[in-house]
Amino acid sequence: MSGVRDHEVVRGPGERLDTDALVVEEPLEIRVEERSVAVTMRTPGDDLDLAAGFLCTEGIVDGADDLHALDHLAGDPTRNIVVARVAGGVEAHLEALSRATREFYATSACGICGKTSIDRITTLAGGHAPTGRVPSDAVLAALPDRVVGPSFRATGGLHAAALVDFDGALEVLREDIGRHNAVDKVIGWRLRRDRLPIRDRVLVVSGRTGFEIVQKAAMVQIPVICGIGAASTLAVDLARETGTALYGFVREDRWTRYC
Amino acid sequence: MSGVRDHEVVRGPGERLDTDALVVEEPLEIRVEERSVAVTMRTPGDDLDLAAGFLCTEGIVDGADDLHALDHLAGDPTRNIVVARVAGGVEAHLEALSRATREFYATSACGICGKTSIDRITTLAGGHAPTGRVPSDAVLAALPDRVVGPSFRATGGLHAAALVDFDGALEVLREDIGRHNAVDKVIGWRLRRDRLPIRDRVLVVSGRTGFEIVQKAAMVQIPVICGIGAASTLAVDLARETGTALYGFVREDRWTRYC
Repeated sequence: MSGVRDHEVVRGPGERLDTDALVVEEPLEIRVEERSVAVTMRTPGDDLDLAAGFLCTEGIVDGADDLHALDHLAGDPTRNIVVARVAGGVEAHLEALSRATREFYATSACGICGKTSIDRITTLAGGHAPTGRVPSDAVLAALPDRVVGPSFRATGGLHAAALVDFDGALEVLREDIGRHNAVDKVIGWRLRRDRLPIRDRVLVVSGRTGFEIVQKAAMVQIPVICGIGAASTLAVDLARETGTALYGFVREDRWTRYC
Repeated sequence: MSGVRDHEVVRGPGERLDTDALVVEEPLEIRVEERSVAVTMRTPGDDLDLAAGFLCTEGIVDGADDLHALDHLAGDPTRNIVVARVAGGVEAHLEALSRATREFYATSACGICGKTSIDRITTLAGGHAPTGRVPSDAVLAALPDRVVGPSFRATGGLHAAALVDFDGALEVLREDIGRHNAVDKVIGWRLRRDRLPIRDRVLVVSGRTGFEIVQKAAMVQIPVICGIGAASTLAVDLARETGTALYGFVREDRWTRYC
């Protein structure tokens, strides 16, 4: 597994030498043409899906038609830089690029508060009409198992995100040390197959659900988010504004729906 | 508790109405004089400690002498902006401010890879001679209990960071929706009491340990980090370079030491 590296450790009590599988963490730089847009600490693997998903959920590209090419920087031995070639070149995306890299400052300039951020995201994502469709109790009970991937089994150190249909069948599962990266990887996987928006799937996340996860899901109109852990106030507020059904503490025998 | 908000939820199976305590998530903007340095999604509470810790672990201030004043922006009803007044004014800190806000781009410009980041951090933190002192088995076994705070008990949605001495006595515990924020809060608490560096304490973190946690600890010479969860490759590499003892999976009956 590319996301795992063996390391010599000491186990205790008793100071016993052993080998442990560590989750790999390395920086990935995402460029649009020659412009650096972001650097994220990620677990290597599915880098192109991650970059595509990031560019989409940050509002820089709308879909597969906008992405002319996407690959690791040629000749770079670290494979830690991905370059996107976009329709119309960097000039056609300057406004979105500036917004993505400076959005926090723009937000703060007009009085920083959760409501401001939510208004901005709602406008950007356009919101989406609630489908009214929610997973059955039986499907919900099976979700925790859907987000246990091979690298988590080996290291215990990863987040996971998955898309499942309303019958609970798994479409795609991705793991990463960053929970937002795992979500970008599954969204990017769909984008690169030209299958956006994602109106017919449930997004399952292994950990807690914060504002950023709901924002990314809303950008591609995912109707239902199920977290294995808790949700934050801002996540719940944004889910309500965007018409997203949000679940937390989804376990084999119980669940909580926030909105 | 200011970090918690009640919310109406539906519990299942059975669609039962109930009330759940959610962890509060709101943005905090940190300014140095009139300059915006960062916005972080945080759980309100101990904002001044968070800002002081952030400014210290990002290398913008060295200690209490550098901080002339620190308070919420006067007249701002959201209380989501903290302003720091620094020795010499913003001009005296321009280099560090530029580095903090642009460091990822600087890193990428010189060939992005973990090693580059580690070299930079090691230089910045100066490293610290290993003390050779590690917690006893009995102290390690008691650590998981030290990082369960009141808001986590209520919501299940928070990270925690604590400083304990080598006998296991708790000095300070802070909770936040962001794990890096919880660490900045405990470091800032010490800074504002003019008690840096932190050579005589163990940093305990409730979740996983990534690069960023080790970087923050190394900036104030914390000799030992104990995580309840796993550590990443880059966290282990940086701990070795900076002379930090790093533990993971610290439980009542066992622990793993990475270096």
